[in-house]
Amino acid sequence: MDNPVTGRRIGLVVLGSTGSIGRQTLDVVRSLPKHFNVIGLAAGGNVTLLEEQAREFRPRLIYCDRDSEYVRGRVSARWAGMEEMAAHPDTDVVVTATLGITGLSPTLAALRAGKAVALANKEVLVMAGQLLTAEAKRHSAQLRPIDSEHSAIWQCLWGEHPDSVERIVLTASGGPFRDTPPEELHRVTAEQALRHPNWQMGQKITVDSATLLNKGLECIEARWLFDVPLDRIDVILHRESIVHSLVMFRDGSVKAQLGVPDMRLPIQCALTYPERVPGTAVPRLDLRRIGTLNFGTPDMRRYPCLSLALEAGRNGGAFPAVLCAADEIAVQHFLAGHLGFTDIAHVIEGALAAHTGPANPSLDDILAADASARAWAEDWVKAKT
Amino acid sequence: MDNPVTGRRIGLVVLGSTGSIGRQTLDVVRSLPKHFNVIGLAAGGNVTLLEEQAREFRPRLIYCDRDSEYVRGRVSARWAGMEEMAAHPDTDVVVTATLGITGLSPTLAALRAGKAVALANKEVLVMAGQLLTAEAKRHSAQLRPIDSEHSAIWQCLWGEHPDSVERIVLTASGGPFRDTPPEELHRVTAEQALRHPNWQMGQKITVDSATLLNKGLECIEARWLFDVPLDRIDVILHRESIVHSLVMFRDGSVKAQLGVPDMRLPIQCALTYPERVPGTAVPRLDLRRIGTLNFGTPDMRRYPCLSLALEAGRNGGAFPAVLCAADEIAVQHFLAGHLGFTDIAHVIEGALAAHTGPANPSLDDILAADASARAWAEDWVKAKT
Repeated sequence: MDNPVTGRRIGLVVLGSTGSIGRQTLDVVRSLPKHFNVIGLAAGGNVTLLEEQAREFRPRLIYCDRDSEYVRGRVSARWAGMEEMAAHPDTDVVVTATLGITGLSPTLAALRAGKAVALANKEVLVMAGQLLTAEAKRHSAQLRPIDSEHSAIWQCLWGEHPDSVERIVLTASGGPFRDTPPEELHRVTAEQALRHPNWQMGQKITVDSATLLNKGLECIEARWLFDVPLDRIDVILHRESIVHSLVMFRDGSVKAQLGVPDMRLPIQCALTYPERVPGTAVPRLDLRRIGTLNFGTPDMRRYPCLSLALEAGRNGGAFPAVLCAADEIAVQHFLAGHLGFTDIAHVIEGALAAHTGPANPSLDDILAADASARAWAEDWVKAKT
Repeated sequence: MDNPVTGRRIGLVVLGSTGSIGRQTLDVVRSLPKHFNVIGLAAGGNVTLLEEQAREFRPRLIYCDRDSEYVRGRVSARWAGMEEMAAHPDTDVVVTATLGITGLSPTLAALRAGKAVALANKEVLVMAGQLLTAEAKRHSAQLRPIDSEHSAIWQCLWGEHPDSVERIVLTASGGPFRDTPPEELHRVTAEQALRHPNWQMGQKITVDSATLLNKGLECIEARWLFDVPLDRIDVILHRESIVHSLVMFRDGSVKAQLGVPDMRLPIQCALTYPERVPGTAVPRLDLRRIGTLNFGTPDMRRYPCLSLALEAGRNGGAFPAVLCAADEIAVQHFLAGHLGFTDIAHVIEGALAAHTGPANPSLDDILAADASARAWAEDWVKAKT
């Protein structure tokens, strides 16, 4: 099956190919071998896996954070920057599955070249949503979500008029500590936080799912992707992660997208849009077997990071960038055993309180806010330990 | 808000205006007074209510099964046949909310005149689905479902390619006897059968919901509306009637439409399509308050009418017409106290076994099958009582 627009295979660039989403993206490519040409692969430090991927998918362009003579010498791909592969003439879809701020510049390059961007790196949109959506509009480039919640909303909006949306409802599993008494949360370990009940994901996002900071980021992400203000976006608890999210329309009708928790489905949707390609890779949902779906209200005492994220989203400007930066540092130190679980919220709260900056920040303002929030958070950790 | 196609108010004909769906249709018209011109109203025997409706909505055309001098003399509307009002040049949408076979001929007239038909009278499609869908296609007329399940599926398909559908999943509340031991079902009364746990509906459909015959009719209806074979249509039990139905796509993604059980929502959808008109008439769904949604497999021992309906659907020809006719007679006699609840299945089973007829019946063949099944059922009841 070829790209419906150009009549050829879909030219694919995967930024962050050795991470969890990157690897699952290549799983989808593997399951649909006639659909894609892998134009470029980019990774952080996992040289061994990147080399393996390069030998299998034979990209023309390759990039690694660690400039590796080893990779350069052993794969036939040409070394290239992420911006270059994102904007390459043969690229149709760029998967941004990098961590944190790394994905911002190549995502901008892709949008400015009119490419479709399949976005898994939500921090990019949280930090620079206004900028990215404006660039996408200006260059008729498409932002497609990979997050399961946003893919759900996106799918529910196909064939609907944007003005028809009354509310967006994001579901949250509640993470591994949804039943832990709030007063015991300061004692939980990184190992416990990494045991997500429903999803297999990277470490950073798994911890963010335990604090529900991730759900706050998703609200801000939804705000930009679907142009719906934050006060019309709700979060509800849904233990089973089967209903991936819902849209309520202005006539009172509600649509939801459901499926077994498997990221390959939203990835495939984002890669092959507007086509739904037949696939057996994703197990089929059987509600009869599942039996019961539960819904509830998140307890803000248990999830202070969710409140902080929503507040940062409402404040706008570079506050969401500060939120992301402070969280990234705090989670690193929590995983390394330097901080307690409840300290994550304290670091974020402090960094947000310390921030001052313009209401309509430029990219430079955002990068500056990111850097100073990181420094602030590192100082906090040092003082604490 | 005007008709998006013609730029004027939507010209509406309501066939069966004094029944449950007819009255709720006029509720929707009342809540959106600037959207509609009521061109015609037609009713069965409820002269008093029809006259009241005519005084309120001032239709140009009116019809009553009982030719009522009283109505003729007191309302300014001209007396007209249902076919005439369905095909009238000022008519845009015809709501077919009549009972049984009555709606067939005016529905055909509407489709042949290229009108949109909002169909609540599922028997019409069950009996003559092939004929009606062929006529709709030939005259570029649109069949829009009013049944909540089919409206759900229809809404889930907006913006999707028909080839993408893998399965359709219809939800069933299970009716008032979902927890009654099957061996006690022969003793249940009409009064008990009319106490539906979730929906306020007419008497006939409420009994059909207790036997799940209704769900079998809905499978056949879905088969024609969405051009999906019966073996790709599933029925699942869902006690709460919040998820109105689901579509599974060929990539493994599932979409569902949800809402509080209120027929005004699917009615409004069918009347105002492709627009979603803002409305506060329908209460908003709050899953946090509902808490739990349950799903399960229907027990065919409890619901023999569902098996019979699916068998009639698979057999095709005029079998579905025989199914509808035998059921209509059986339910009448059950409501009148002449038959037990479990006799309904016996009447249907016997009528289906007695039927022989062509595989591709004409309208006359269907009407003949209908008449002989009614006679067969009446004879069975007479012999029994």
